[in-house]
Amino acid sequence: MHLVRYELDGSIRHGILEDGSISEIEGDFFGDRQRTGAVVALDAVTLKSPTMPSKVINAAGNYESHMAGAPKPPRPKPFLAPSTSVTDPGANVVMPRETPVSYEGEMAVVISKRGRHIAEDEVSDYILGVCCANDVSAYEWVGADSDWFRGKGSDTFSPFGPWVTPGLDYRDLQLITRVNGEVVEDTRTTKMFYGVDELVSYVSRYMTIEPGDVFFTGTSGESTPLNDGDVVEVEVEGNGVLSNTFVLAT
Amino acid sequence: MHLVRYELDGSIRHGILEDGSISEIEGDFFGDRQRTGAVVALDAVTLKSPTMPSKVINAAGNYESHMAGAPKPPRPKPFLAPSTSVTDPGANVVMPRETPVSYEGEMAVVISKRGRHIAEDEVSDYILGVCCANDVSAYEWVGADSDWFRGKGSDTFSPFGPWVTPGLDYRDLQLITRVNGEVVEDTRTTKMFYGVDELVSYVSRYMTIEPGDVFFTGTSGESTPLNDGDVVEVEVEGNGVLSNTFVLAT
Repeated sequence: MHLVRYELDGSIRHGILEDGSISEIEGDFFGDRQRTGAVVALDAVTLKSPTMPSKVINAAGNYESHMAGAPKPPRPKPFLAPSTSVTDPGANVVMPRETPVSYEGEMAVVISKRGRHIAEDEVSDYILGVCCANDVSAYEWVGADSDWFRGKGSDTFSPFGPWVTPGLDYRDLQLITRVNGEVVEDTRTTKMFYGVDELVSYVSRYMTIEPGDVFFTGTSGESTPLNDGDVVEVEVEGNGVLSNTFVLAT
Repeated sequence: MHLVRYELDGSIRHGILEDGSISEIEGDFFGDRQRTGAVVALDAVTLKSPTMPSKVINAAGNYESHMAGAPKPPRPKPFLAPSTSVTDPGANVVMPRETPVSYEGEMAVVISKRGRHIAEDEVSDYILGVCCANDVSAYEWVGADSDWFRGKGSDTFSPFGPWVTPGLDYRDLQLITRVNGEVVEDTRTTKMFYGVDELVSYVSRYMTIEPGDVFFTGTSGESTPLNDGDVVEVEVEGNGVLSNTFVLAT
């Protein structure tokens, strides 16, 4: 069972995806969901990002394999991307012409309710479910700027989806990234320096997390720049595949 | 004439403030505003932040006097704070007990419409008006972290208001900060390295700006840590005074 956000007949709807069919729901997407009785085929709708988050919270340097063997940092390294950086599953990621752009395949978790000062052993109560994410990165800008507002937060740089899957054990899932069908990252979420429970608890010491907020939990590989037309897929075990085509800005 | 957002009888409303009275408005706060006919005294309402922005865009190092005489940087230095860091005029700023917290008095501008790739000479068409802001800062965290998510983005660290004033020349306004009544910063917005037109245009090269988004345009002074109960006022010529009491977290 997956939770989806989609567009049909010009309006944004929510639903439950089972066996290729979407049952439309009303009520609270994050809690008390009611089926309207309407059912539509998955391939008849346009998928949207599972939520429109108030903030995207990314984890930097969260896999030893991404950090060239550097030791575990003394604490998590979160950074923020704005809601305007979100784009939909299947949508194009727009690469600025003035700098190279790279993929970062990640597992994401979506927050289900407002919280602050959440203990690590209570974090799972705040997780709606798991999905795939791509922390699109312009490394030259990351290196040139004191803040990563454009290197990580430019428009279309935060695709996530294709839908949210409740009930998975986010502590141990396979995470694979492919570029044009070739596997370029393959890891398990057990290998994160700081897991979801630690990341969410740590961030909530400082700021309120809201329903729909999304944590991108870090990438495992050493990424390379993409070319116009490249297709990047991120697959999380039990969730599905997030696919985006990277296109040069016109 | 000022544009206000306020709470009355348990609901959030918008209005036009003139001569100490608020005329309630309906319709589009950012465009076609209609007076409902209801009028209430300013001191009968609770002021809210003028908008609830999708993002707070701050300018780092934007006054020579703040940068100890360092030269103008080669480009603006924006960074992001989340909507959850916003707090209201008159509300308490909560200081974490584990680190010192300082004020940064700033002029802010509020965005009136969605835009991308905005030319500098068109920025004024995207400005709803001017207000006061306090870019509350925990400098030890700013220095310790690779991202300023908690040093600048913790809950209550982005108060702005007390209301928005259209029609001011944001290129040349006096900006004063007081701590417990004593002037600690006094400058003019002419002294910014990058003015509003340049800042907004630059950020819009990378990301979409939305109605209600707010730019904090930088502070002029060298700030010092605050004590429990200190009152910080930020005053922008033609707008008014933003006042917040700083209290230690319980």
